[in-house]
Parts: sequence; C-alpha cells; structure tokens
Amino acid sequence: MPQPTDSTLLRYAEVQRFYARQMQQLDLGKAEAWAQTFTTNALFDVPTLPEPVRGRAGLIAAADRARTQLAEAGERHRHFMGMIDVLERPDGTLDVRSYTTVYASVIGGTSRVHRVCVCEDVLVREEGELRVAKRRVTRDDLA
Amino acid sequence: MPQPTDSTLLRYAEVQRFYARQMQQLDLGKAEAWAQTFTTNALFDVPTLPEPVRGRAGLIAAADRARTQLAEAGERHRHFMGMIDVLERPDGTLDVRSYTTVYASVIGGTSRVHRVCVCEDVLVREEGELRVAKRRVTRDDLA
Amino acid sequence: MPQPTDSTLLRYAEVQRFYARQMQQLDLGKAEAWAQTFTTNALFDVPTLPEPVRGRAGLIAAADRARTQLAEAGERHRHFMGMIDVLERPDGTLDVRSYTTVYASVIGGTSRVHRVCVCEDVLVREEGELRVAKRRVTRDDLA
Repeated sequence: MPQPTDSTLLRYAEVQRFYARQMQQLDLGKAEAWAQTFTTNALFDVPTLPEPVRGRAGLIAAADRARTQLAEAGERHRHFMGMIDVLERPDGTLDVRSYTTVYASVIGGTSRVHRVCVCEDVLVREEGELRVAKRRVTRDDLA
Repeated sequence: MPQPTDSTLLRYAEVQRFYARQMQQLDLGKAEAWAQTFTTNALFDVPTLPEPVRGRAGLIAAADRARTQLAEAGERHRHFMGMIDVLERPDGTLDVRSYTTVYASVIGGTSRVHRVCVCEDVLVREEGELRVAKRRVTRDDLA
Repeated sequence: MPQPTDSTLLRYAEVQRFYARQMQQLDLGKAEAWAQTFTTNALFDVPTLPEPVRGRAGLIAAADRARTQLAEAGERHRHFMGMIDVLERPDGTLDVRSYTTVYASVIGGTSRVHRVCVCEDVLVREEGELRVAKRRVTRDDLA
C-alpha cells in the first residue's frame, strides 16, 4: 500500500461520510432518501432478501418492509459500518469492502449484536454524488 | 448530498479525530480533560442522568461518578462512536448525529454490548478547538 | 487539542485507511500480506500469545494458527477497530491508541461480542508506507 495521495485521502473521508448518512437514513426508515443513495438500476444482494433486487422501487419496498417488521417486533436496529477499505479503479469507480455490525435493541429490553456482515459495494459518482451501483452483503453466521 | 468540498472533508476527519480522543478521555476517567471538550456552559442531556446538566462542574461530577461505579462493579466500559453524520450551518456550527455503542467487560468475566445510543451534538469552535455546546443522547432500548 | 493542520487531518484519514485494510487482511487469513504491514522487527504483544513475538515470521505463524483454530471451531472473527487517537511525534512517528472489538460468529449459529481490546501502536513510515513498529494489545476482561 504505497503512500496515498491527498486526493485519495479526501475521497476516503468522503466515502466514510457517505456511508454514515446512508446508514442513518436506513435506520431512520427514510426509505426514499436512502434509495436515492443508489443508482437507478443498482443491484442489491443481501441475505435478508430471497433474491437480489434491482432498482430503487425494490430498495424502497425492502426498507419499508424492514421498518414495519421492526415496529411490529418492538425493536430498533442500527447499522454500524466500519473498517472501510477503498480501492480506486482508473476510471474513478470505487470498490469498497467493509464490515457492518447490526445492533438490535428491544424497546424496554436489552441491546445485542444481531448480525455481523461484510459489505462489498461498487460506488460511482453521478451528478457529483457518490452512489452505490452494486451491493453484495454476506452474513458471518451463514455458511 | 452534493460533492463535498475539500474543506468539508478535512473537517469531517477533524470531527472523527475529536470524538476519538473525547471518548477515550471519558473511558480513561480523565474527567477534567474530558469536560474541557465541552463549552463552559454546555448542555448535557443523557439517559444516565436524572436531569440534564449544564457546565463543566456537572460534567466532571458525572464522569467521576461513572468511574467510581465502574470500579465498584469491577467493570470496564468503552464508548465506541461511529456513523458520524455532520451538517454544517452557514456560521460554521456543526450539527452532528452519530451512534455510540457502549461495551461493558466484567474484569475476569466476559464482554458484552451494554448500550446502543444515538448522540446528537452541536459542535462549535472556540480558540481553534472543537467543543460540544450541546449533547443529547438517547438509548435504543428506552421508549 | 488545538486546531489540527490539513496535513494532520490527511494523515488521520491515512491511518484509518491503513487499519481498515490491515484488519481485513487478518480476518481474511492473508497472513503474509498482513505481516507486511509491520516492520521487519516489529514487536507484537497481544493477550492471545503466551509471550510477545518479534518479526514477521512470528506474526505469520500467529495469524496462521488463528486461522486454523477458527476453521476448526467453525467460527468467523472480525476485528472492528475505531476511536483511533493519533499523536504525532516531531520525527513523524505516530503513537496510536484505539479500540478493537472482536466479533465472533458461529457458522450456522449466532454472532456475539468476543473481545473488547485497547490497541497501542507505534507507526512509522517505510518506503512511503505506514507500518506498525510496535503493537501492544490489552483485553478489557483481563485484570
């Protein structure tokens, strides 16, 4: 890992900032704002879905469903991402691999580690903004 | 979220750095150094206190009390903050919303998730340094 | 903590980036690539080893042993570092104190907090790259 340029380091901070907001939007149940952080035809492949979804309508439906299930269960979830490793392709596309711990808290009960996941994203820039073009999440507890 | 300026990204790194040290000071029981990271009349509203405190004397008392209780219980706590979302007001004040997981370890026992919290801060700059002017913490396990 | 320079903040992002990759290499079982992130005669003092090791051969052996033990136990571990506090010495050497939570997941089972640790590193720059010259890890659950 040779010494990174200032530009690479600023982009690193930008990626961290991007994810902080994105995860908060998801946990706040802001399904539409969250979906806007993906490209229009993003591929979203996560263990909680029976099959990958493509595009924002599917993302919004997935986020809304998660919010409803949490409300019914009387729980809050927080997606806590970290260990963000960013590789830049020559064309500016970013390959990002990171960890996400999902914490669950029973309202009136206790908090616990719910899931430990690895998140592999492809990030592109559209109209100046970073967006996820592809996301693949794996869970550590699944074979 | 339009493309952030270099200045915004550098400030993002500064905020991360600020919190890393601030949380460590708290966990090290350095009550006075920790209190110095707040403005002189900061408002501190957290679930562990029966009512909000204002000013450094109250902060120092709260941190000292926490240290004493941990020693009596034979536990160590670590405040692990992340997912830091920073909004800049035109006057340079920063509105920061982040997650904090508190881990508890019984000395001679096991480690666990103790609390999952959302932290909403107002950060200002005084004499060149970032300081918390207002902090409101909510716990995910409380209604 | 006076206002940090842009150079300090860029280095802060560099340190975060360095650790993200280093921890992922360890968790991926890439023992040799991981060992390359230490200086050739680095001192590595962690609670999982009966005594400190010095140099990359010992690091590789330790990482390989951990990988084997995890495979036998049917578990995955993730080292999630954060709250990275960086102090710069006049000669550019970095003293870094941070927290690392280790999550363990039983494959086909559940995920949990395994360890909560404090990591104290000395980082130096060699051929442009950051490298760990000295690491001392303590576990919160040990006296």
